Amino acid sequence: MSVQAIPRTSALAQPQPFTGVLAPVVTPFRPDLSPDPDRFLAHCRWLLANKCDGLAVFGTNSEANSLSAEERMGLLDRLVDGGIDPKRLMPGTGACALTDAARITTHAVKRGVGGVLMLPPFYYKGVSEEGLYAFFSEVIQRVASDKLRLYLYHIPPVAVVPIAVALIGRLIKAYPGIVVGMKDSSGDWNNTKAVLDAYPGFGTFAGSESFLLPTLRGGGVGCITATGNIDPARIRRVFETWTTAEADGIQERVSQFRKVMQKYPMIPALKAVIGHFRKDQDWRRVRPPLVAVDDAMAKALVADVLADGFDMPGM
Amino acid sequence: MSVQAIPRTSALAQPQPFTGVLAPVVTPFRPDLSPDPDRFLAHCRWLLANKCDGLAVFGTNSEANSLSAEERMGLLDRLVDGGIDPKRLMPGTGACALTDAARITTHAVKRGVGGVLMLPPFYYKGVSEEGLYAFFSEVIQRVASDKLRLYLYHIPPVAVVPIAVALIGRLIKAYPGIVVGMKDSSGDWNNTKAVLDAYPGFGTFAGSESFLLPTLRGGGVGCITATGNIDPARIRRVFETWTTAEADGIQERVSQFRKVMQKYPMIPALKAVIGHFRKDQDWRRVRPPLVAVDDAMAKALVADVLADGFDMPGM
Repeated sequence: MSVQAIPRTSALAQPQPFTGVLAPVVTPFRPDLSPDPDRFLAHCRWLLANKCDGLAVFGTNSEANSLSAEERMGLLDRLVDGGIDPKRLMPGTGACALTDAARITTHAVKRGVGGVLMLPPFYYKGVSEEGLYAFFSEVIQRVASDKLRLYLYHIPPVAVVPIAVALIGRLIKAYPGIVVGMKDSSGDWNNTKAVLDAYPGFGTFAGSESFLLPTLRGGGVGCITATGNIDPARIRRVFETWTTAEADGIQERVSQFRKVMQKYPMIPALKAVIGHFRKDQDWRRVRPPLVAVDDAMAKALVADVLADGFDMPGM
Repeated sequence: MSVQAIPRTSALAQPQPFTGVLAPVVTPFRPDLSPDPDRFLAHCRWLLANKCDGLAVFGTNSEANSLSAEERMGLLDRLVDGGIDPKRLMPGTGACALTDAARITTHAVKRGVGGVLMLPPFYYKGVSEEGLYAFFSEVIQRVASDKLRLYLYHIPPVAVVPIAVALIGRLIKAYPGIVVGMKDSSGDWNNTKAVLDAYPGFGTFAGSESFLLPTLRGGGVGCITATGNIDPARIRRVFETWTTAEADGIQERVSQFRKVMQKYPMIPALKAVIGHFRKDQDWRRVRPPLVAVDDAMAKALVADVLADGFDMPGM
């Protein structure tokens, strides 16, 4: 296991299983809408060969919540059996049912993953901190492994159920060395800053590269970002240079590219860009309730990213 | 199969598999938080013996989205094997993953249920009508049974993903005789009225007894309501009298009782009331992320319902 020190000095600093830029890997589908393990494995390999520090498979951008528990576990098996270093994997293992979350997480830990990224249970809304604490606590106890490294996934715009700063503190205290970090996809810098300030040494990832530089400067460890699926090397330049004056310009450049992508529905757009560079339009397929970009939109999107000087080398 | 005519005259009227008052049956849990099939079966039997027209097991109030697919299917098997008439069952079979929704629905149809109640996929927000149409359509085609009777479950306060009036029309048109009704838990009478006016003959259920009388007068077929778990006979009096002047007073009375219950968190409160009348405090248990009512709240709740003259006879 390749453990990197977090890139800063802190009294509470401890080895972190992940730092840098992680991609929430998009999931390709076959014509019958079943997951396509071969295309998936190929894309994972491309990402690791192109400066991705880790693969947050089965995230929001992976359409993971459109996959059954069995489909997620089956794809993870295919990646590890296909030679992907499990320590580079941070699969999403959250689910609405604690039995599912415990089962998927147990499977991932047994396959040797570096960590897991866990959504709160997201069906019931307005649930209490007590109830969410009980959920995560119960899952951790059922997994019952000192190899578990759990990242909390705070994404209120989609899950609607937030993971509050106080809850994070309670879980860190109850499960030190197990609850090791979070992904903050709130899009709210004040929330990220509150976590960074409250829990030095905690492995905080920005949920978008737009916040990568301030997150690193504030004591965070990196970002897990949609566009990491297509642009990991450029985004990682921010991570490589963050202690230098050069970083601001690089950050500005990647933030600008993200804005190009944000003109389109993100998940279908990522798949359309990959499809273009792989010359493989099957990549455009998504699972309902998402809808693939059509030919006209794909054409406009590709023109936009090419105008930005974008490339996916080695595809 | 006991098919009742819908209680009104309409050019489009067709036999409806369900009318009247259905309970979204609460799910009891054992100390290890596994579902308790014996208590579940006992409660289902009590409901059918106390004027419930049908059992909408695995609804929101059932904590169904805190159960795995296997747990839902296992409990359904226990009910049918335990002698519950499957034609009285309208299990919730929705899921975020279309593969799960298709599998759970196929299982339910094979067990002979009268119908299923289907949530939209509820993780991804802001999805298009096209994407939701594709989801329901794909599930229906995978189930591939002319025995399927599908009720759409519109509950935007919880699912956040709504099922718009236009989408309902599109599904009715594409799958006549299959997409036969809906439960409207929007809490928005204008929405219920829009559905009733747009689709005469469609099996529209109010999502709360508060709207039962106007729903019936507007051409709907009944209600599927949380409090149906404890108060089905009184609520059914509205259904039995709706064409008479007496109905308004009865509606007012049941609406008043609902307000008593709404002072408390509904699902834990329902379980606490059942626990009180069954003299079985194990009934109070819920699955995280929900939290059970504590002793003090249970005491206040029971005092409140008793002050209202409430009883659960034959428990």
